[in-house]
Amino acid sequence: MSWKDWVHITKLDPDRYLDKDAIEIVATSGTDALMLSGTLNVTPENQAELYDLVRDYDMPIVVEPADPCGARFEGIDLVFVPSVLNASHPLWIVGQHQRWVRNYSIDWERVVPEAYIVLNPASSVAKVTGSDCSLSAEAVSAYATVADRYFRFPVVYIEYSGTYGDPDVVKAVSENVSDARIFYGGGINNAERAAEMSAYADTIVVGNAVYEAGIEALKATVRAVR
Amino acid sequence: MSWKDWVHITKLDPDRYLDKDAIEIVATSGTDALMLSGTLNVTPENQAELYDLVRDYDMPIVVEPADPCGARFEGIDLVFVPSVLNASHPLWIVGQHQRWVRNYSIDWERVVPEAYIVLNPASSVAKVTGSDCSLSAEAVSAYATVADRYFRFPVVYIEYSGTYGDPDVVKAVSENVSDARIFYGGGINNAERAAEMSAYADTIVVGNAVYEAGIEALKATVRAVR
Repeated sequence: MSWKDWVHITKLDPDRYLDKDAIEIVATSGTDALMLSGTLNVTPENQAELYDLVRDYDMPIVVEPADPCGARFEGIDLVFVPSVLNASHPLWIVGQHQRWVRNYSIDWERVVPEAYIVLNPASSVAKVTGSDCSLSAEAVSAYATVADRYFRFPVVYIEYSGTYGDPDVVKAVSENVSDARIFYGGGINNAERAAEMSAYADTIVVGNAVYEAGIEALKATVRAVR
Repeated sequence: MSWKDWVHITKLDPDRYLDKDAIEIVATSGTDALMLSGTLNVTPENQAELYDLVRDYDMPIVVEPADPCGARFEGIDLVFVPSVLNASHPLWIVGQHQRWVRNYSIDWERVVPEAYIVLNPASSVAKVTGSDCSLSAEAVSAYATVADRYFRFPVVYIEYSGTYGDPDVVKAVSENVSDARIFYGGGINNAERAAEMSAYADTIVVGNAVYEAGIEALKATVRAVR
């Protein structure tokens, strides 16, 4: 199964704790892939710890580093590398990536570039990147079109990290993106929200719900998109 | 002939004057395409004037707007749209493009995205975009790799506008770019320079030489790459 067929991804944060039983339930929930990703306090050590907990499950394990220079490749199927298109500084769009190329050996076959559009001003990722989150649906959709048609990103990621987003924004994006997969993340903690965003996004990403709403909520989001 | 087969492009600036005889010599020089492009004082009026002078020649005519919102499509074969990867502000990387999508109807089939790396700090384009021109060959090459492998730009444009660049920089880029076409522009005003940069770049772009070194110089650069 190609990553392009994934409809449900579970994002696990190396900086947050889940016990072995919880990991077992996540890994067998029916989610298509586990994405190891966090904005703050992600270290080689806590990445490795989390990896050791999930490595034996027969499912894709991918990482999505906040800074590609921190990307781990060993044992990882794919590395999803964000570029934050509505960031306030080129560092988050292209600068980190240039530094990464200069300092690391990269297996490009395993890299999936992601065009992030960050929309919750209270989120860590918005604060760190200084993202302009005061965008209309038309403005978000224009960024998504640039990502899809001009930069040819394979993924456009509508990121409301920490809050539930505006379905009309995701709808507008879905009406304008032709080739890229549309990922949606943020606030999906029940079946209704999973179904609502899945109507427009190709793939939903469930993260905090695992830690906050609980494992049963995760299973409900999986059922909603099947 | 696809634009990917062009080895020599002549760049004409709508803000600079050439008489009809000079245009005739340019258009029949053996250059592969005419690119209408300038950084400053390009208006719909002077673009249209220049277009009227060149339109009847049987050769590709393309434009390359400083701001895509100023792009002209009528009568134009292709629109080359730069993103300045080493600019100091996201406006020049993705911001103008987002505004363009919001405000104009775009014929994407005729758009060729270009990853610019601007390297002459004295040039108008460097000043306008606040480009960081103090880059080593390795740093330029890393930007080029990001353009090629991460963003999947079809063109990486090494731009020394107004001065002759460092062949070692273009060589480093050529050794790291795998899919994109490499364009080189800046200071090519004789056969030796044309040959030197053509050893590494797929396509050389001759601009100022037409106005400054004269039409015979242009013809020498064409002969050098044939």
